Amino acid sequence: MASEFELINKLREWFPDIGDDAAIFSVGTRHGVSLPIVSTDSFVEGEHFGSYFTPYDMGYKALAASISDIAACGGIPKYALLSIGLENGALDFAKEIYEGIKTVSEMYGVKVIGGDTTKSNTFFISVVIIGETERFTGRNGAQVGDIICVTGEIGSSASGLVALQNGIKSVLTKKHLNPMPRVKEGQELSNYVTSMIDVSDGLLSDLSHILEDSQVEAKIWKNKIPINKEVAKCMEQVGLLPTISLIDFAMNGGEDFELLFTIPKNKLPKAKKIVDFTEIGEIIKCETQNVKCKIIDENGKEIPVKGFDHFIK
Amino acid sequence: MASEFELINKLREWFPDIGDDAAIFSVGTRHGVSLPIVSTDSFVEGEHFGSYFTPYDMGYKALAASISDIAACGGIPKYALLSIGLENGALDFAKEIYEGIKTVSEMYGVKVIGGDTTKSNTFFISVVIIGETERFTGRNGAQVGDIICVTGEIGSSASGLVALQNGIKSVLTKKHLNPMPRVKEGQELSNYVTSMIDVSDGLLSDLSHILEDSQVEAKIWKNKIPINKEVAKCMEQVGLLPTISLIDFAMNGGEDFELLFTIPKNKLPKAKKIVDFTEIGEIIKCETQNVKCKIIDENGKEIPVKGFDHFIK
Repeated sequence: MASEFELINKLREWFPDIGDDAAIFSVGTRHGVSLPIVSTDSFVEGEHFGSYFTPYDMGYKALAASISDIAACGGIPKYALLSIGLENGALDFAKEIYEGIKTVSEMYGVKVIGGDTTKSNTFFISVVIIGETERFTGRNGAQVGDIICVTGEIGSSASGLVALQNGIKSVLTKKHLNPMPRVKEGQELSNYVTSMIDVSDGLLSDLSHILEDSQVEAKIWKNKIPINKEVAKCMEQVGLLPTISLIDFAMNGGEDFELLFTIPKNKLPKAKKIVDFTEIGEIIKCETQNVKCKIIDENGKEIPVKGFDHFIK
Repeated sequence: MASEFELINKLREWFPDIGDDAAIFSVGTRHGVSLPIVSTDSFVEGEHFGSYFTPYDMGYKALAASISDIAACGGIPKYALLSIGLENGALDFAKEIYEGIKTVSEMYGVKVIGGDTTKSNTFFISVVIIGETERFTGRNGAQVGDIICVTGEIGSSASGLVALQNGIKSVLTKKHLNPMPRVKEGQELSNYVTSMIDVSDGLLSDLSHILEDSQVEAKIWKNKIPINKEVAKCMEQVGLLPTISLIDFAMNGGEDFELLFTIPKNKLPKAKKIVDFTEIGEIIKCETQNVKCKIIDENGKEIPVKGFDHFIK
């Protein structure tokens, strides 16, 4: 078992910038003017992390998911601060968490500049990411006629979760435990898109945020949704197929940390040359103002936003 | 009871800048160049907040204590982000917490620009403060010959806590529940001091951080320690006096959020004109390198750093 002394030394070695009451940071300027941006997120054992999460995975995913928020705004993550609540004396546990954090911080060039560890019966980790962006991309810019697109594949993380819950081996479990936020893609896309969000609650649920903030509706081309072949395999194995529609499952699956965005048609060719993504629908006019903005399928039928929990609990 | 709808509306009204995945912020420039600084802290029910804390007090104190970290670096707090873990449906509780946060944020001109609320069996609140400073004041600049000083009075918060724990009425309870960090003083003092820290763990314990980081030792003039008259009154009432020395109690009492700093002798007169503080000792040479740096009294006798917990548990 790691001693407290060993742990503190490890942390000093890994994250040499932690120390004083507060930390200095700087947000650089490239090309033109960069805006500093910041985001915070908390993760709680039992809520965000199932029992199949190692402490390493918890540290990894907490930092990765937080970085994804910055990616969703077209930003570059630069600094992280961590607040961790732990049971007294859980030193090996703490060390592993920090190992996961270290992996992600190195992978994305994020410097850990602050942190504090406190006693708590429930394990939690709060992450703050400070980044910079030349062009802040929010959720409120979607225009009628824009094409709705998504990077990568959808439903993989939810499928990985189902595999973990049922003790099934699947390549998708890694997508759930150790996701890879799309920082580079977000940065490139911010030059073309009108709105962007990361898929954390589920594609439909996250799309709803864009629709509400932009006061528009969406038509989704359901058969265009990009789904990894392993998702169907995994769902069959646990007996979810054919009871549940594969596409419905994918569209409501959370935590893929892919980027969901709207882009004017004329900007598609240029963006396509730089970033790999799939067109999955279009933005249409909101029929009524100030009501929940609908999502319909190619036949005009409303697609209910079920949310991730509906499927997996 | 507040409905979720009411709560969300209240939060939107109180903190209109929360909303997207991340928030833009800016760190202004006055006179010359300002450095952005950031600090994070977590507070857990049962650990940091006893049962006599109302949710309002918890929100208040979490934000106030976090602001104090920025004050300790000579900084001006500008923005706050909050991550709160709550039991499902604890809406009235949440509303009161945010009321406490609102009070402090308005009092110190801090803008709440981000936050997230998550389900947790143990209540916690993680606060991030972003600020700016023209002159970052750390813990590592104390020089032999510097005078050790402290703002305000010491031991009041610990005494207030003792009063609360024993159900005694005292004006000091407010010092424990609703402390006032020394932002203005920290900013002024940063022009003169060689090191600074806020009294959060206890005067001796926090002084030890300065001594360690600066590799110096300290002589404390024990009878100069500024203690509110109500402290002795309160300690008598609960029967702690004369068993425990009043000065020892005060020097080990935490959470006064006063500023403890070291200052060259020749800068004392100027600083004294601007900020009210008490000289309580001097920095002396460290006898041996790389060992724990001692604190001695006016007679050369080592003063043990007992820590706050020793007295109140």
